[in-house]
Amino acid sequence: MKKLCGRLIFASPSVSADILYAGGFHAPDEVIYFEIPGRKALILSQLEFARGRREAKRGVEVLNRESFLRDNELRTDLNVILNLSAEYGVKRWEVPADFPLETADALRSAGIEIIPVHGAYFPNRQVKTASELKKIAEAENATEDSMCYARDLIRGSKVNSKGFLVLSGKLLTSERLRAEIEGFLKARGYTASQTITACGPDASRPHELGTGPLRAGEPIVCDIFPRSDLTGYWGDMTRTFCKGKASPIVRKAFKAVLKASETALKMIRNGALPSDIHNAARESMESDGFPTGRNRNGNPVGFIHGLGHGLGLDIHEGPRVSPLNPNPLKKGNVVSVEPGLYDEKWGGIRLEDIVVVEKDGCHNFNSMKKELEIG
Amino acid sequence: MKKLCGRLIFASPSVSADILYAGGFHAPDEVIYFEIPGRKALILSQLEFARGRREAKRGVEVLNRESFLRDNELRTDLNVILNLSAEYGVKRWEVPADFPLETADALRSAGIEIIPVHGAYFPNRQVKTASELKKIAEAENATEDSMCYARDLIRGSKVNSKGFLVLSGKLLTSERLRAEIEGFLKARGYTASQTITACGPDASRPHELGTGPLRAGEPIVCDIFPRSDLTGYWGDMTRTFCKGKASPIVRKAFKAVLKASETALKMIRNGALPSDIHNAARESMESDGFPTGRNRNGNPVGFIHGLGHGLGLDIHEGPRVSPLNPNPLKKGNVVSVEPGLYDEKWGGIRLEDIVVVEKDGCHNFNSMKKELEIG
Repeated sequence: MKKLCGRLIFASPSVSADILYAGGFHAPDEVIYFEIPGRKALILSQLEFARGRREAKRGVEVLNRESFLRDNELRTDLNVILNLSAEYGVKRWEVPADFPLETADALRSAGIEIIPVHGAYFPNRQVKTASELKKIAEAENATEDSMCYARDLIRGSKVNSKGFLVLSGKLLTSERLRAEIEGFLKARGYTASQTITACGPDASRPHELGTGPLRAGEPIVCDIFPRSDLTGYWGDMTRTFCKGKASPIVRKAFKAVLKASETALKMIRNGALPSDIHNAARESMESDGFPTGRNRNGNPVGFIHGLGHGLGLDIHEGPRVSPLNPNPLKKGNVVSVEPGLYDEKWGGIRLEDIVVVEKDGCHNFNSMKKELEIG
Repeated sequence: MKKLCGRLIFASPSVSADILYAGGFHAPDEVIYFEIPGRKALILSQLEFARGRREAKRGVEVLNRESFLRDNELRTDLNVILNLSAEYGVKRWEVPADFPLETADALRSAGIEIIPVHGAYFPNRQVKTASELKKIAEAENATEDSMCYARDLIRGSKVNSKGFLVLSGKLLTSERLRAEIEGFLKARGYTASQTITACGPDASRPHELGTGPLRAGEPIVCDIFPRSDLTGYWGDMTRTFCKGKASPIVRKAFKAVLKASETALKMIRNGALPSDIHNAARESMESDGFPTGRNRNGNPVGFIHGLGHGLGLDIHEGPRVSPLNPNPLKKGNVVSVEPGLYDEKWGGIRLEDIVVVEKDGCHNFNSMKKELEIG
């Protein structure tokens, strides 16, 4: 007799984009999703059952968790999965690579094979449908609007005698600019948090949020990545601004990053190799005088991260645009293109667009000009 | 020779409160944290290294990921963990229950024991320090301020000829009330998303967000749960309002939930059993005429969720206040107390406070009155 094999996810949709994608149902706690031949279903507790019935993706059944538990049995997810496996005769589940170990061990002890799937659990998540592209375009539009708003706040600010930016009579700090950007997005139904508004030395650490007064003449990295409260899709975009004149080294770095961005954008198409694109961007910046390595304090300098990442229901998902990804890009992939240069001596520069891969090139969701010196 | 045993987490601090708690360092992607006798450390890539050095918790070293990889080796996290294990002679790692399965399988294949820890990985996370209680109090204060703001918007609204709420000449919908609450919080440095503002039948599904115009005479469940952008700690609070007069059944349900809340709050103290408290709340509502079960559509009615959950760096963490938790509450636990009643015929009622367990009782972080009919 052939073993029945199914697919199983046990995760919170607030954390796992796989289960959100599969079930179309958002919830704060762990839920169970499975597929067996002819059947896709979510198993929901009484807390979520009625809502699940209304919200789950078409084609996904909503089953009552209690119906998988016997009266005198502990109400655990493990028991639900064990009984589910017995009821449908499933001897082998394929699960995501990040399936929780303790649950897997317990299922294996009960004689059920648990096979983690290497790489993408739903490879189709990386190839966006027209409907997904529309949602990503909406998110990226909102992101770009907020970036224009941020630029205009910097442009509209004055510079005091200490070289600090002042807006409407008050210091324009990293914290205040972040709050302005995030409030702007929240009012449009997008949630942003940990937005990067990092000036000068702060900008030399790519994920540093930034604190304190923004200063004229220094690069200000703005990296904004909100999620749509309605659709769950993310936007992501980075620009680097300088209030007034930048120093020669910062201007030179900006030009190098801009050229790397243009170089990479020209290479993106169906079939292109992520490692080739990443390396071309790195080499372009290297030949412009910005090699990658470590400084005398042991801190990294240069182009110290991957060129880009996939984006969708996760802010960072496949395909990565980095030397680690050996698979060619495919039509329908949505990726960031974000070369950057970092040096604690002068700060950092990063420029990030989101594009969708097409047959002979790519479509850029962003159209905002990449300009360093503003206002 | 004794096997060297360590503790290992491999997770994103944006998802795993354990690694955020251990390392004190926020990042969007997976990082590695380990403990061996005399040593606690984060392993960070060049992207995060310089920031990690500045931000990691005191007593946690920051190590360079590249130093755990040989020149010609794939730059994978698995190789980092394998080399780390070899370098320190660790033969056995204790990991969180949700450690990713594929990584665990690969480490086991290499002869390393991987032991998932059942239950809380850091039991101390459930016993809050004075500094943590201060952060939770701040978050809950902000949450309560936003709840008062929401109540005042409902109170200040008018009722049109259709019975819909109107504020400043425009319909007050679930969506608009949610946006007002979340904007209010964002301006104070708190991120809220998926805030529940559910009216009438929408309120009968506990995690339903709510859509469309708010209506007078029907219960409006407001469940607000923001996270501090600065500290990472959560607030969580629920009130149920009715614009104008409520129907007799809704008024009766509100009284029953209020009594259950008072009953439960009086029982919370060091040593009390979560199941006893949950059951007392359930029995109180049952004896007030609201049993728990299913209606003729198969949808759940009554008290269809646990009484409460722990709260801290996770919105839902241990200890649960539910029949499933056999362990007595301890001084320093922070839990929600949120009895509720749900019925698609008339809607839902939920009242939620956050309390810290003390020796002879509990301290309630909330002081806002529980009143149904407003304005």
